[in-house]
Amino acid sequence: MDHADDAFDLPFPHRHLLGTQNLSRGDIERILDLSERFIDQNRQANKHRTDLYGRTQINLFFENSTRTLTSFELAGKRLGIDVINMNTEVSSTKKGETLIDTAMTLNAMHPDVLVVRHPDSGAVDLLAQKMDCAVINAGDGKHEHPTQALLDALTIRQRLKRLEGLTVAICGDVAHSRVARSNIHLLNTMGAHVRVIAPPTLLPTGIARLGATPFIDMREGLKDADVVMMLRLQRERMTGSFLPSVREYFHYYGLDHDKLACAKPDALIMHPGPMNRGVEIDTEVADDIHRSVIREQVEMGVAVRMAVLLLLTPKQGNGGPANG
Amino acid sequence: MDHADDAFDLPFPHRHLLGTQNLSRGDIERILDLSERFIDQNRQANKHRTDLYGRTQINLFFENSTRTLTSFELAGKRLGIDVINMNTEVSSTKKGETLIDTAMTLNAMHPDVLVVRHPDSGAVDLLAQKMDCAVINAGDGKHEHPTQALLDALTIRQRLKRLEGLTVAICGDVAHSRVARSNIHLLNTMGAHVRVIAPPTLLPTGIARLGATPFIDMREGLKDADVVMMLRLQRERMTGSFLPSVREYFHYYGLDHDKLACAKPDALIMHPGPMNRGVEIDTEVADDIHRSVIREQVEMGVAVRMAVLLLLTPKQGNGGPANG
Amino acid sequence: MDHADDAFDLPFPHRHLLGTQNLSRGDIERILDLSERFIDQNRQANKHRTDLYGRTQINLFFENSTRTLTSFELAGKRLGIDVINMNTEVSSTKKGETLIDTAMTLNAMHPDVLVVRHPDSGAVDLLAQKMDCAVINAGDGKHEHPTQALLDALTIRQRLKRLEGLTVAICGDVAHSRVARSNIHLLNTMGAHVRVIAPPTLLPTGIARLGATPFIDMREGLKDADVVMMLRLQRERMTGSFLPSVREYFHYYGLDHDKLACAKPDALIMHPGPMNRGVEIDTEVADDIHRSVIREQVEMGVAVRMAVLLLLTPKQGNGGPANG
Repeated sequence: MDHADDAFDLPFPHRHLLGTQNLSRGDIERILDLSERFIDQNRQANKHRTDLYGRTQINLFFENSTRTLTSFELAGKRLGIDVINMNTEVSSTKKGETLIDTAMTLNAMHPDVLVVRHPDSGAVDLLAQKMDCAVINAGDGKHEHPTQALLDALTIRQRLKRLEGLTVAICGDVAHSRVARSNIHLLNTMGAHVRVIAPPTLLPTGIARLGATPFIDMREGLKDADVVMMLRLQRERMTGSFLPSVREYFHYYGLDHDKLACAKPDALIMHPGPMNRGVEIDTEVADDIHRSVIREQVEMGVAVRMAVLLLLTPKQGNGGPANG
Repeated sequence: MDHADDAFDLPFPHRHLLGTQNLSRGDIERILDLSERFIDQNRQANKHRTDLYGRTQINLFFENSTRTLTSFELAGKRLGIDVINMNTEVSSTKKGETLIDTAMTLNAMHPDVLVVRHPDSGAVDLLAQKMDCAVINAGDGKHEHPTQALLDALTIRQRLKRLEGLTVAICGDVAHSRVARSNIHLLNTMGAHVRVIAPPTLLPTGIARLGATPFIDMREGLKDADVVMMLRLQRERMTGSFLPSVREYFHYYGLDHDKLACAKPDALIMHPGPMNRGVEIDTEVADDIHRSVIREQVEMGVAVRMAVLLLLTPKQGNGGPANG
Repeated sequence: MDHADDAFDLPFPHRHLLGTQNLSRGDIERILDLSERFIDQNRQANKHRTDLYGRTQINLFFENSTRTLTSFELAGKRLGIDVINMNTEVSSTKKGETLIDTAMTLNAMHPDVLVVRHPDSGAVDLLAQKMDCAVINAGDGKHEHPTQALLDALTIRQRLKRLEGLTVAICGDVAHSRVARSNIHLLNTMGAHVRVIAPPTLLPTGIARLGATPFIDMREGLKDADVVMMLRLQRERMTGSFLPSVREYFHYYGLDHDKLACAKPDALIMHPGPMNRGVEIDTEVADDIHRSVIREQVEMGVAVRMAVLLLLTPKQGNGGPANG
């Protein structure tokens, strides 16, 4: 890699990655361009780089998420970072206070990047204010999950060569979904047309102001879509009256071949995983070898996280041991 | 290490290590020969090699097993691999489906080797069919635990200089034991005479067809044995009528000095651990400094796992960083 | 780093670090001097050294302690060690036996250093007797927590330039505190005057013989103190009659500005964390930007643990891979 490689060396205009809402088109394109360089390398036997040799990455997960944690851990290790996992439970009382003390404690250990998942919306922003290092939001409550939106964008761009002008239908539990929120912001910034499809109880008011056209009828919402993005039914985040019956939900909002026929013939099928097969997506559709890009999303996830880590982590003094 | 070192460089005729049943005598000898090279090195201060620098190993454990997990993690790290641990619980419903989706997800992250422990017999085979990388079975239900049989074989060979012609008595809960099954296959292939000793309720029918001579009476089964291999009483895997009382079990099938006197005077005492002292084995016998090789089994475990990782993982492009 | 660097290369006169009770003044000064070298480096981007490249460190934690575990894991990785975490629960029965078998098993895997936390006083000493490698006590029951006392000493020395002649008041749940015990030993050895302040039920008899002057009245105990060391209220270790009400405890023994006024005007405020704000310490006092050194304690913790690892771990054959 060249010593004067702009993609690596130019300063990135953000200290943290807390959401996609404040990312410009240029920011997003830079992350995606850099990510593309890692796709091939991650398919080789030797995937280990030394760009961030000797840095410290702490993965602080207040929610279980094997898949996202593994993706961030892999991304860090493949860049030569020393990665530490901290799985913690949120105590039911005095959350805010404890969270700030946790931040203070971690900060004193001088990590270079902190990756945080938290069940409360806004908790990662709060934490970031107390840290001297870069903070990456790996999902906070119903708020944002920016690396998911970035990997979705990379997956679409790899397949369809562009984002601008595409019609993307996001379907399912929009109300509880940080994935939907981060995708709506990013796709709007990139000039795509975003639709959301959900039953009235799972469709937040004010969604139009975020830049998404709401649909109650799935067939109508899928009409001529280039991309169909299914959401996981977050039953664990629902309370009482919100909770639909699975059978009824699948009938109206599960993606099957019949409803998919309303979208464009080559429409991409996406899902952030883990899937509830037979609940929000039909098994045959999920495994459609031409149109389903669900596994590519996972693959792009590692590449995108490598790019984000590289852009946000200090780079002076690379390559060799500190006692060299 | 020589560049033309056959033990390292010749292709191994298997993509996965799912069991010992399909290993030939040549396969087994090659693994054991390679393992022997690591024994001394693991006793040095600097144990870190770079043979598999930059590869990714994922340890996917659906059952808690600190000892086996640690052994595989150490083996991988000592070869320079980036090792990721995933501890997961098997959800009670839709297991098969979820397992395949897990495989798909992991596969998209491009690991070079996947080490799996699972409570269901056959689950690791199923997973291997969906993976592009090498899969190592670290124990699946009552089916196989091949690295345990290989480390047992290495321990015996180190002490007695051969496997052929030895009489090995495997004693205890044969019905629930993947360790027994993997050992019976391997020892038969290597030309040993295998006996199994168990109470009738813990002795599977058809065991003779696997190549083991069954005994109900422990003294008879131990007669002139070169090796006594005790099994852990897997009380957690037993149901209702199978469950013996501990006191009665120890009386008839616990290894004590008295019963051990039936075996050859220098017979090796083995146990895969963790031991239930006073249940399947007497404390004095377990700690017999001349004949008990229980700690050597643990030591050989790391060496055997290093050999297996080395044989199954792609080797092109070793040694330096990918961005070098 | 020089090849003839005494701080690194001279043999350390202890094989293990089980407590501070047996450390001489020279031992303590050597650890603190060496620690100081790592403070600056831990603030740089590249913090990774190769002093202990290829060694194996196992962190065996029988109690949850994210903060101490993370500190030891970071310290090991920043020295180039391969670090393995083992989180285990103490089974309620046959603890002693199982503990020794665990030690035997780990020993056979040839770690170079074992870091242990255990809920029972004395368990780490017992374990150390069975290990061939260095053992570091990361806290055992009410007994000792030596790296905490060392990091406290480093924090004080960094701020006040000495330990000798200082008056240090340790306040709170002295009876259940390994932190108090390790600090009393170390501070006495270094020539400080140690006071302990606690309600009668939390003040162990015989504390004067350990070298600490006991006080029941907090204002009296804090009079002219150079350092105020608060202890965490270990409610989980208390039984029945010992347990005070939080409100009453804070009234008499919580550190607030009013009581703190009895100490010297620039007295340092310390707490081993995690804090119960409003229970043993007032939030404003904890966050006092001039006198509170609570975050510095965390920072010094990583440096001290690096020094201890370096002094106790074998150093021959550094720097390159074993298969070079």
